[in-house]
Amino acid sequence: MNGKESNAGRHGGVRETRRSHVTIRTVVWGENIHERVNEVVRSIYPDGMHTTIAAALNADDAITASTATLQEPEHGLTEARLKETDVLVWWGHKDHGAVADEVVERVARRVWEGMGLIVLHSGHFSKPFKRLMGTPCALKWREAGERERIWTVNPGHPIAAGIPENFVLENEEMYGEFFSVPEPLETVFISWFAGGEVFRSGLTWRRGAGNIFYFRPGHETYPTYHDETVQKVIQNAVRWAYNPQPAFAGIHEAPNVPVDKALEPIAERGPRLHKAGEEGYR
Amino acid sequence: MNGKESNAGRHGGVRETRRSHVTIRTVVWGENIHERVNEVVRSIYPDGMHTTIAAALNADDAITASTATLQEPEHGLTEARLKETDVLVWWGHKDHGAVADEVVERVARRVWEGMGLIVLHSGHFSKPFKRLMGTPCALKWREAGERERIWTVNPGHPIAAGIPENFVLENEEMYGEFFSVPEPLETVFISWFAGGEVFRSGLTWRRGAGNIFYFRPGHETYPTYHDETVQKVIQNAVRWAYNPQPAFAGIHEAPNVPVDKALEPIAERGPRLHKAGEEGYR
Amino acid sequence: MNGKESNAGRHGGVRETRRSHVTIRTVVWGENIHERVNEVVRSIYPDGMHTTIAAALNADDAITASTATLQEPEHGLTEARLKETDVLVWWGHKDHGAVADEVVERVARRVWEGMGLIVLHSGHFSKPFKRLMGTPCALKWREAGERERIWTVNPGHPIAAGIPENFVLENEEMYGEFFSVPEPLETVFISWFAGGEVFRSGLTWRRGAGNIFYFRPGHETYPTYHDETVQKVIQNAVRWAYNPQPAFAGIHEAPNVPVDKALEPIAERGPRLHKAGEEGYR
Amino acid sequence: MNGKESNAGRHGGVRETRRSHVTIRTVVWGENIHERVNEVVRSIYPDGMHTTIAAALNADDAITASTATLQEPEHGLTEARLKETDVLVWWGHKDHGAVADEVVERVARRVWEGMGLIVLHSGHFSKPFKRLMGTPCALKWREAGERERIWTVNPGHPIAAGIPENFVLENEEMYGEFFSVPEPLETVFISWFAGGEVFRSGLTWRRGAGNIFYFRPGHETYPTYHDETVQKVIQNAVRWAYNPQPAFAGIHEAPNVPVDKALEPIAERGPRLHKAGEEGYR
Repeated sequence: MNGKESNAGRHGGVRETRRSHVTIRTVVWGENIHERVNEVVRSIYPDGMHTTIAAALNADDAITASTATLQEPEHGLTEARLKETDVLVWWGHKDHGAVADEVVERVARRVWEGMGLIVLHSGHFSKPFKRLMGTPCALKWREAGERERIWTVNPGHPIAAGIPENFVLENEEMYGEFFSVPEPLETVFISWFAGGEVFRSGLTWRRGAGNIFYFRPGHETYPTYHDETVQKVIQNAVRWAYNPQPAFAGIHEAPNVPVDKALEPIAERGPRLHKAGEEGYR
Repeated sequence: MNGKESNAGRHGGVRETRRSHVTIRTVVWGENIHERVNEVVRSIYPDGMHTTIAAALNADDAITASTATLQEPEHGLTEARLKETDVLVWWGHKDHGAVADEVVERVARRVWEGMGLIVLHSGHFSKPFKRLMGTPCALKWREAGERERIWTVNPGHPIAAGIPENFVLENEEMYGEFFSVPEPLETVFISWFAGGEVFRSGLTWRRGAGNIFYFRPGHETYPTYHDETVQKVIQNAVRWAYNPQPAFAGIHEAPNVPVDKALEPIAERGPRLHKAGEEGYR
Repeated sequence: MNGKESNAGRHGGVRETRRSHVTIRTVVWGENIHERVNEVVRSIYPDGMHTTIAAALNADDAITASTATLQEPEHGLTEARLKETDVLVWWGHKDHGAVADEVVERVARRVWEGMGLIVLHSGHFSKPFKRLMGTPCALKWREAGERERIWTVNPGHPIAAGIPENFVLENEEMYGEFFSVPEPLETVFISWFAGGEVFRSGLTWRRGAGNIFYFRPGHETYPTYHDETVQKVIQNAVRWAYNPQPAFAGIHEAPNVPVDKALEPIAERGPRLHKAGEEGYR
Repeated sequence: MNGKESNAGRHGGVRETRRSHVTIRTVVWGENIHERVNEVVRSIYPDGMHTTIAAALNADDAITASTATLQEPEHGLTEARLKETDVLVWWGHKDHGAVADEVVERVARRVWEGMGLIVLHSGHFSKPFKRLMGTPCALKWREAGERERIWTVNPGHPIAAGIPENFVLENEEMYGEFFSVPEPLETVFISWFAGGEVFRSGLTWRRGAGNIFYFRPGHETYPTYHDETVQKVIQNAVRWAYNPQPAFAGIHEAPNVPVDKALEPIAERGPRLHKAGEEGYR
């Protein structure tokens, strides 16, 4: 750990007042390709985009962020590490296909168990996000360094806390509708682009016990993740996505409830396919 | 066709008043295993569950239903046939794993393009449903022939049209919460079980341009699909799920919008990764 | 009526194929002030905005639209007339306060019973809309005749049928977020404004058995309701909002279910406040 | 205060780690009639239901709860006190009509500004709840002391933290569907009743910046608010509903944005109704 106080005792949204030694254990996953092969990106993010994002998160007392990258064994996302991860932040673009399906499934399972997931920008096409949405997650795009103005359309949402009613990223890639994701639980931000498009830039979902937030900005050739307001949104998102309950391990099961264990007394009637206590089909 | 009048000109929810020759082209997909290997099921559904369901749908003037089964080539769901299908109804239980992944993906793509999907009972664990939900879709269950009482909790919803405030299936399999699906657009029905459980039995979602409805009842050892109210719910669901718009083929694309085609005049600025008009990464 | 065929038998979203003589009975309510006192508005809508909108709706075979105005007795919305109204379209701006509270309550009750309600533009501040939303329904605004570009963000929704991915109103009043309405069931349209704002321009809700759609465009000094795409959206909205079920009269009641009428046999236990069959408190 | 530590610095869902002196300032509002006039109710809640509920909340380190009753001047809910209230808990039954409309409007405005509201049991018919929902909020009921079994259908929701998958209240009043409220953001609990009904017992909404939770149990002739699980749900609800952001005072305004203050440079065009900077109509 790192000397931070903890929210081990946190429950239902507010931390216990006791000092303790746990914070929101966050992993920032970076594809880490452009930063190494592209001069422009390297000049903006010399230590990688994931490192910049993790540093921004560590500036928040409630968060302890580390990083993982595509190039590490199991992409840095072993079973053991995910088990100790409260919130996963994901940025990828150039090589979504290189992420092993086994790791994708592992991430999805941890989300269902309660791990938060923050998907950034081009991560809209990442395997874990598409897996959890069940839709194409496609959109329009244009790389022209145009002005993006992001509007808060849900000012009472925790992710909008302290965010102004609108803020500007002077140079960004355009993403335009139709963004083919499921209707969200809530829409938090909508972007205006100089070229005439709009985009739902901040959207929330829950999948199983896990909270998911998609946040649009972050093209690699612009210094977006150095922007303080963008950093604040991602901090807020990690706090919001954090589910302090124990991992919901039972979510993967479809348990039989035998007749003699029924909550109300019932008698068995009619024909059956399964014997008592037998497993169902999958 | 079959002499029925059509709703070819239907638009935005109400049919044109002209007589025409199209109805809602519906395919009832049945796994078709229990009906052949289990005496009890065969006695209730001698021609297969899919046949009984399709007949019930054909009793509705607006619907033309045919069937497809697991055993047919490509499970009866060729690219060509799905292209001509407005709504797909799905019942499976014993061998979900036997459905080819390629067909699952084909079904998902057609849903995104606008095909409706009605998932029945044990279809909660079918591959197409899990693919489109992005969650485990698990639940509790008990096969005791107990009483199920289904309550309408959204009486204004089109799927509840003509359905009483509650109705009883005297013998049904119990399904209990937690049902691990995404929060629905709307909850239409909730079941009460004699053994003490409740279940969200009628839920709606949209995925891309396709409407999805899950309807709980229908264990194969009981005559559920002969029940008139159950039949009426499924008819309503097919009508509701039907999207008269042309297939939304563009949903699979993530088109680049070049700077010189921007809707509002903009000048290109800043560094770029892609050349103009180049395809993005997937 | 007017010789149109009917959808009397419509059920669950698709019309019966029989010819009949009922269509969606629609009333377009207009405040009808600016058209009489303002030269500019009169020149665009010489017979009133409501008349233009009603004419556009009557161009749709499935709709029979008439009008009502603030100046008529009971604002043209008597109990008897509302009873025969399937969908009410509302435009008001200058004198929301002049609408009698009794009529507002009458409209709300009919919506709960299943009447559709389409609220246009400055109707965001109308009494019936605020009554049904339970929120301030406030927004930012600017009257500069600037360009509005409306994006379809839910192309599979019935209200978006036949509407292009975006369309332009060259001169419109700006409405900007935060639009303080409840999170909608679905967001259908989002507007881009030349001056830098965005706005959720097409939103749906259900209240009781009644479907509600808010549609942003329509400032009185511009010819917005002569625009074909705008007209098409309103036609679609009327079709979507139409609930063919009989009026849900029971929605106003909170009935006691006596113990001896319980669906499952139960014995009365414990102390009581009310005698059997007594009315509850309100 | 009371020596508790504070979460003054809380932001976006997790409390700051610094010790401070504020907690969630909660007011439990009780109608306080049955407790005084009915022997049975008095024997269960000798100091009033509100006092029992407030004591349960004060057992949570993060909450400081006080009480207010119908009989106090302004029902104990003065402008000044509401301003200092983070979350309001509401129980009423016998005399909803006695609550002054001015106080109802005051409560609604504070909710829009960000005050949380927890509505208990018969509070479904209270004026503030109906005001904020915009619907009848009606339901079925039966007072037979029957068994209620409450199921968690959203185990990842903060309000379900630490709540078992189901729990029993051996004697409760039955509430049955249709519960005529707007489709919620999320459904957290559903009740099963011995007499055959189901009910959506835990529902969330946001109105403006304020979070609202309805929780069903709590008939006055049974000791429901002495139940530990019920107490835990209400504690969780208060924590969830708490919005640490400053009061959103601007929510009541509909500001004009003059052309010369537009975010993007635009020229005024076309005819106008209002002069620059003029107030709009309400």
